[in-house]
Parts: sequence; structure tokens; C-alpha cells
Amino acid sequence: MKIVALAGGVGGAKLAEGLSQVLPPGDLTVIVNTADDFIHFGLHISPDIDTVCYTLAGIANHEHGWGLEQDTFHVLSSVNNLQGPTWFSLGDRDIATHLERTRRMNNGETLSQVTESFCQTWNIKSKIMPMTDQTVATMVHTTCGRQLSFQEYFVKEKCIPEVKGFSFTGIENAFPSPGALDAIKSAEAVVICPSNPWVSIDPILAVKGYRETLIIPTVVAVSPIIHGKTIKGPAAKMFKDLGYEPTAVAVALHYGELLDGFIIDNQDIEMINDFPIRTIESNIHMRGKKDRRRVAQLVLDFIRNIHNP
Amino acid sequence: MKIVALAGGVGGAKLAEGLSQVLPPGDLTVIVNTADDFIHFGLHISPDIDTVCYTLAGIANHEHGWGLEQDTFHVLSSVNNLQGPTWFSLGDRDIATHLERTRRMNNGETLSQVTESFCQTWNIKSKIMPMTDQTVATMVHTTCGRQLSFQEYFVKEKCIPEVKGFSFTGIENAFPSPGALDAIKSAEAVVICPSNPWVSIDPILAVKGYRETLIIPTVVAVSPIIHGKTIKGPAAKMFKDLGYEPTAVAVALHYGELLDGFIIDNQDIEMINDFPIRTIESNIHMRGKKDRRRVAQLVLDFIRNIHNP
Repeated sequence: MKIVALAGGVGGAKLAEGLSQVLPPGDLTVIVNTADDFIHFGLHISPDIDTVCYTLAGIANHEHGWGLEQDTFHVLSSVNNLQGPTWFSLGDRDIATHLERTRRMNNGETLSQVTESFCQTWNIKSKIMPMTDQTVATMVHTTCGRQLSFQEYFVKEKCIPEVKGFSFTGIENAFPSPGALDAIKSAEAVVICPSNPWVSIDPILAVKGYRETLIIPTVVAVSPIIHGKTIKGPAAKMFKDLGYEPTAVAVALHYGELLDGFIIDNQDIEMINDFPIRTIESNIHMRGKKDRRRVAQLVLDFIRNIHNP
Repeated sequence: MKIVALAGGVGGAKLAEGLSQVLPPGDLTVIVNTADDFIHFGLHISPDIDTVCYTLAGIANHEHGWGLEQDTFHVLSSVNNLQGPTWFSLGDRDIATHLERTRRMNNGETLSQVTESFCQTWNIKSKIMPMTDQTVATMVHTTCGRQLSFQEYFVKEKCIPEVKGFSFTGIENAFPSPGALDAIKSAEAVVICPSNPWVSIDPILAVKGYRETLIIPTVVAVSPIIHGKTIKGPAAKMFKDLGYEPTAVAVALHYGELLDGFIIDNQDIEMINDFPIRTIESNIHMRGKKDRRRVAQLVLDFIRNIHNP
């Protein structure tokens, strides 16, 4: 069963990794948000691409979900001695990824090409592609009047400023990565991973071509909000800042008619009848490799059930 | 006694460090070649500036003369896993220098400003300045018809191609770093360190302003060629490729009327009468910190002797 997953960082990577466990090699394509990408120390950093790749390669740091397992921090410690900025965590082996990506992109390779090559090195059987090869940058509009770049808001300001909206700089000149729309057209279903709807999935949907193409396959989403909270990240706070109850229902309404099915946590069972679309409940909190496999299997069974009720 | 030293990498750094031992803090200014600077992995790398700074800070790798003492190579090892280029050695802590330099220069600081700030962090009492804040790149013209960038020639091709000349791309738009000419004007003497005349000292002299200003102070040079060989680097081979005997005399003739005095090794004592300028001989091979101090003291005594014969 050919599946396309749309994913952001840690939460999305978990379900994508689960799907890679239960699908035959090559049947999974993961289209990853790149609107968090930024230039730091002159290096092209793609946090969500790296998190998805490291997770699927089985080399991600288990505690954080991002970065590499057992990495060292000699470079950052010396940057600190030079009074350089250390707010963005950079392990030594992680820096190698950024250096080599930057070198290849400066030589004219696209982010898609670099990502494909890295996936081969890391022996990843699924296809991981950036949402676009063009530069798109999420800007977070805050009530203090300032627009913050995503990393500024997320890492430096620790998501404290109150959000009043988002914009995606460069989105009008962005196109889906080569093969991305074809993958969606030929997929039996598209899975929207439990990633942040505002800053992980919306940027993907805002690239021209995706939203129109998503009409073709069955689309199911897994709620990133469980019992009013997110496992990780500011999605719940963003719903609140923007005037919505931070619930699974709010997520389903956010995606609207895009969805054919929705999966919520069993902690939210009391709202199961509030959804305008087919919705099932289960334990969707993914704590480890087995959980990820279990939730991924649940997603596939749900899709089969939608196709053959 | 205010002294300005002109230096390239390892050889120049040794004498500069010796001079910093024997001169009062603040009396030494080192003007460093930057025509070897290059962009690698998107990072601004200044090999000679770093070698001089690390050496004067007492943190240089003693075995190589370049790079940092007891550095690790986790980043480069992971770059190698990604099939990235590893021909240019980059230790982890050394990478921090390049990252932070690149970050600051991308933010608009000049190489002079970054170097000054790093020298403060490393507690270097001498003033170290790049020859220029503009981009200059040594191109090595070879008999095989190709022009090689300096690092390509030096590190990648291991100095094997036969040299037929050099050019310094960007030199026509380069100006001495702020304060460099004033330092020369107010110096009691300028010392040309035992660096490569063709690719370390010539680029400095080619920046408009230096050669004219060097008429003012006493200028002495220490030969980088001892008994037909260089301690390190391709200077002797370059003299040969270009049709000259690789001798201390050839070096003195290369600098020509710029020089007021010249210091050769005692192994070359038989040619002491062949020089058109005041020349003394001694053991100028600098094997360690004491040697560097000894040769530096010799240079200062020689300058005093020229001033008060």
C-alpha cells in the first residue's frame, strides 16, 4: 500500500518511522516541512528534514527526538568560548550534516538531491523529500508587534510571545519537490502526521499544488493534540493564542474538508461524536519504537477500512 | 621597540611568536597573508590568520604547526561518512573558529574586527591583522595549463604541478587593513618572517600601499630557505619551477631593494659575501619555543645594529 506522509519534526518523524516499520520498503514517501529551515553560521540547517532522516535511520537522539544519538559538543563549546551564539543546539556529527549539505547546495545541488543522497548513506529505504526546493521561511506574527523567524520564536524566545498569525515568506515562488505531486497522485492514502498544524503542515499545504492534489487520495490525520495538550511543541498554545480551544476537534476543523478520516487519542473519547468526518480513537501517544509501529498499523487499518467499509 | 612582522603560515607564525616573547606587550603588530583564504563548506577559512593566532596563543598543534592542540575530528569523520571532502583538515574546535568567523562576517563585521575580537578571547597581547579586509585569492598558474586555487595546489595536489607563475585575484580592489600602514610608518623596523616569498609575502606586498610605505622603516628578512631547502612548504620547489636556484641569495634578490638587512642560516655561510645588503648568519632553524625566542632576539639585535652601527 503506497502511502505519503506529511510531517514536521519530532512528532511527525515518530509516525513516519512507524509507517516505515509496517510498510514494504519503498512504499512510504515522507514530504517534510522546510519552512523552519534557516541559515546559521552560514550553514543551511533543515531541522525537520534532519529529524525525520535521523529518526528513520535509527540514529536520532532518543531523549530529545532531534539531533544524533551519542553526539559530542566540542564545536559548540568552542563557539561558546568565542562568545558566539549557542541557543541552537548543534552536535559535532550533526554539524557534519549541515556542512556537507551547505557545500553541496553551494555547488548547485537541490535540497531534494542532497536529502536523497544522505538517505542512501543512512540506508533509509523510504523516500524522504523536502516540501520544496525553494526557500520558504515561517514568520511568526506576535502581539508585541514584532515578526519573529520560526527559530527565533521557537528556540530563542521559547514560544513565550503571544501569536497572532503566521506568514510563509517565499511561498509564492515555491513549487513541490520533483516527484512529490506524483507520489501523492499514485498513493492509496496520505497521512497527515501528528505535527503542528500551523507551522509544520500548513507550510506544506501552502506550497502551490499540494492542496489541489490532496483531493485525489484518501487523507487521514492523527491528532497532535491529546487531552488539550501536545506531547511536544507549541501547537496547543498556538490554538489558544489564536482564540481556539486546543482540542482534537479544533485540529480536525483546521484541516476541514481536506480530511477523510481522523484519529484521536482515547483520552478524548468523550468528543468522538463531535467530528464531521470518520473518526476513531486509540492510544496514540508514541513513547517508543513499538508504539510507533502500533499507531502506524492502526493508521493503515483505518485507511483499509475507509476504502472497504 | 615597535616592530611590524609580515607573515604567512607556520614559518611566519614561529618567528612572530618568538618576537612576541622578546618584545613588550603591544609592541608587535603582525600583518598576515590572507590570499590563501577560501570558502569551504560555506565557511570563511583563513589558514594563515588562524596559524598565527593559535601559535601566539600557545594553543597550536605542535606537531603540524597548524590546527589546534589536542583537537578531535568528529565532524570531519562524519563528513567522510557522507562522502564529503576531507582533503582539508578540520578539527572540531578549529571548526568553531570558522563557524563564528563566518557568522560575524555574514553579519557585516570585517575580518580585522573578527580577528581582533578572537585575539582578545585568546589573550593575545600582540596585534594580529589580516593584510586586507577585501577578498584576495592566490591563483597558481601551472605548466599543465590549469590555474589552481592555492588550497587546490597546496593541499589537494600536494604541490606536485609545476608552477609557472602566480596571480592574486581581487588584488586591484584590496586595501591594507585599518591601521596597518600607520603601524608600519611608526615601526622602528619591519621583519619579513621566514614565510614563502611567492605566496605568503608577495600577496601582502601586492596590496596597494604596503610596498610604498615599506620605504620608511628599516626592513629585515629572515631566509625561509636553508641549504637549498625549506623547513616546510613549497617555496624551494617554486624557486626551482620558476628557473631560480633555491637559495637564500635568491630570496634576498626576490625582495630586492626592499631590504635593509638579511639573516641566513649558518649552513649557508659560504654564500655570506654574495648578498648586496647587510647579511648575518646564525642557526635560524626554529624547533621550539626557545629557538623562536633566540632567533627573534637575533633579529632585534640585528635591527639595533643597523640603526646604531
